[in-house]
Parts: sequence; structure tokens; C-alpha cells
Amino acid sequence: MLTREEYAVAQSRAASLIRESGISITDKEAEKVEVADFGLSQLDIEGAQILTLVATDRIAVKIIVLFPNQTIPEHWHPRVGEDPGKEETVRIISGRVRFYIPGDESMSEGFIPDGKEDAYTVRHELILRPDEQITLQPGTKHWFQAGKEFAVMYSFSTVARDVLDCFTDPHIERVTDIQE
Amino acid sequence: MLTREEYAVAQSRAASLIRESGISITDKEAEKVEVADFGLSQLDIEGAQILTLVATDRIAVKIIVLFPNQTIPEHWHPRVGEDPGKEETVRIISGRVRFYIPGDESMSEGFIPDGKEDAYTVRHELILRPDEQITLQPGTKHWFQAGKEFAVMYSFSTVARDVLDCFTDPHIERVTDIQE
Repeated sequence: MLTREEYAVAQSRAASLIRESGISITDKEAEKVEVADFGLSQLDIEGAQILTLVATDRIAVKIIVLFPNQTIPEHWHPRVGEDPGKEETVRIISGRVRFYIPGDESMSEGFIPDGKEDAYTVRHELILRPDEQITLQPGTKHWFQAGKEFAVMYSFSTVARDVLDCFTDPHIERVTDIQE
Repeated sequence: MLTREEYAVAQSRAASLIRESGISITDKEAEKVEVADFGLSQLDIEGAQILTLVATDRIAVKIIVLFPNQTIPEHWHPRVGEDPGKEETVRIISGRVRFYIPGDESMSEGFIPDGKEDAYTVRHELILRPDEQITLQPGTKHWFQAGKEFAVMYSFSTVARDVLDCFTDPHIERVTDIQE
């Protein structure tokens, strides 16, 4: 849950960071930045700010903004009918991003949010810098976290069906509840 | 046909224009900019410079650079087996782009390359500026042209199978012949 004011502040901060990182967006797009607290009510710790530039029934292009040390909780994109699930390439525009995927545990720079050990199960760490990118196959568990500075990245993918994404943390609600 | 030197000059110029437009790419990516003269041997008139950032069997992300008044010849993306054809969203990053699609003839700012009347059949003109974008459904004939300044744009699409694209001009060869 976020108050209307918390939502607006995060939205405006994210839009500024997108522009600071060199990506030009319209004012209309700036107003469409989505603020997601994943129903956990601790946006600065677990959350994300997302601007969807393209969303058809075949592809999606999004800009993701993370505040310093903000974490997108562990999730994966499941099969939906004939769609094998979302395939996603993340390309870093600014900042340093700690990326976690299945593999040997190698976490050293990042951290698991307090009390959330069970919700972050894949711990193979990749550090991605600007102009670096990673492609995730459907069904691959992943989570990521900004470094000490904010981070801005593109997500290029097949069709996005965000509400059908699966999260390890059972407390997550994908739709942000805004309190008036 | 392009000489090795013409190719290298166009490639390096395109990479500089991408960077000037605010998009950061690595030196390795700069070297992968593809120069396409479509087999017509008049690159500055009909041609394009293309950097592929993502190419999986499901999506593609490309940066397209057009020199001043340079034209990408009329083409469309046909059905391939079970794929209904490439769906493509073009988003302008810098410059002013003259875009032509089916509809009432309304060409006023752009022009058809000399002697090529038959190769450019759709003439409904849209002028796209930075931060503006258009989504083309598979099978839709289209061609586009930079304005008096160079233009840089993203192409976000479903899987790209460039060699299977269809062109109105029967003289076109999609693979650039480089003369050593």
C-alpha cells in the first residue's frame, strides 16, 4: 500500500532519473510511470518504477528505474497457454545493477532484504554496468537490485502479462494499492 | 555494392550519430553497425545503417540511422510459417522522419528517389519527431526517409528475419555486397 502522495513522489523522481540517464520521454509518458511496491508497503526496499513504452500482444518495451539499493523481488514468467512465457532482455542504461539468477551462490555485493531469506532463493550474482545486457529465458527465476546509486535499464521482451508473473514471496500482490 | 572503405566510413559515421543522439553503445557494438545499400549502389539516397542490440528467435531491438534525406526502400514483413510476420514499433530518438504507409496520398515533405516511382507505392505521409512512435502490423507496406538532418530511431519488433523481407523494388538485394 502506498499513499497517493508517496506514489506521486516516486513517480516524479523516477521520471527525473530516466531523463537524467539520457533517455528522452514525453510529459505524458512521465505521468504514466507505474510505481510498484508489490503489496509489501516498503517501496524503498522492495519495489520498482516502470514506464511501459510499447505493449502489444507480441512484445513489450519498458524502462525500469530502481532507487539506490531498491530490490525487485524474485520472480519468473510462467507459460501462459501456447506462450512459453516471457523472454526478457535487460540492458543497463545507468547505474550498477546486481542481478541474481540460478547457479552457484556467489552473492557478494548485494544483500537480501531483512527477514526475507525465504523469498530470495537464487543467488548467483552478476554485476551489470551501463551498456551491458542479459537475456533471461522464460521460467528462469531472477531478482535484481540497484547499487548504491540509482539505476535505469530497458526491458525488451515478448508479450508482458505482469499480473500473471509468479513471485517466490507469497505476500506479494502485483497490483499496487493506492490509499486516497 | 559498396567498397570496403565506403562501408567503413558509413559505419563509423552512423556510430557517431547514435552516440550524438544520446544512446550509449560499446565500441564492440559500434563495429557491428550494418551498412545496407540494398544492392542499389547509391547508399546516400537509398540505404540504412542498422545496429542490432537484441536478436533472439522471438524479438529484435535495432537502432536505425539514416543520413540526411536517406530513404529505406518500401518493404513489408511477410508471414513465415506460423509467424504472422514481423510486428514493428519505430520510436524516433533524434531527427525528423518522413514515414509512408497505406492510406490517402499525402506526401508533401518527402520525395521519391529519382526514377523510382514504381518502387514506392504507399504515399500516406506521417512526420515523426523525437519521442514519437508508430506500430506497424505485419504485412503493412512502409518506407521512410530522414529529413534534412540525420535521424536515429529504435525499432522494437518480434523476431526479425531480414533476408525474408519483401521489397517493392525488384532490383533490391538485402545482403550488402562489399567489394574488397
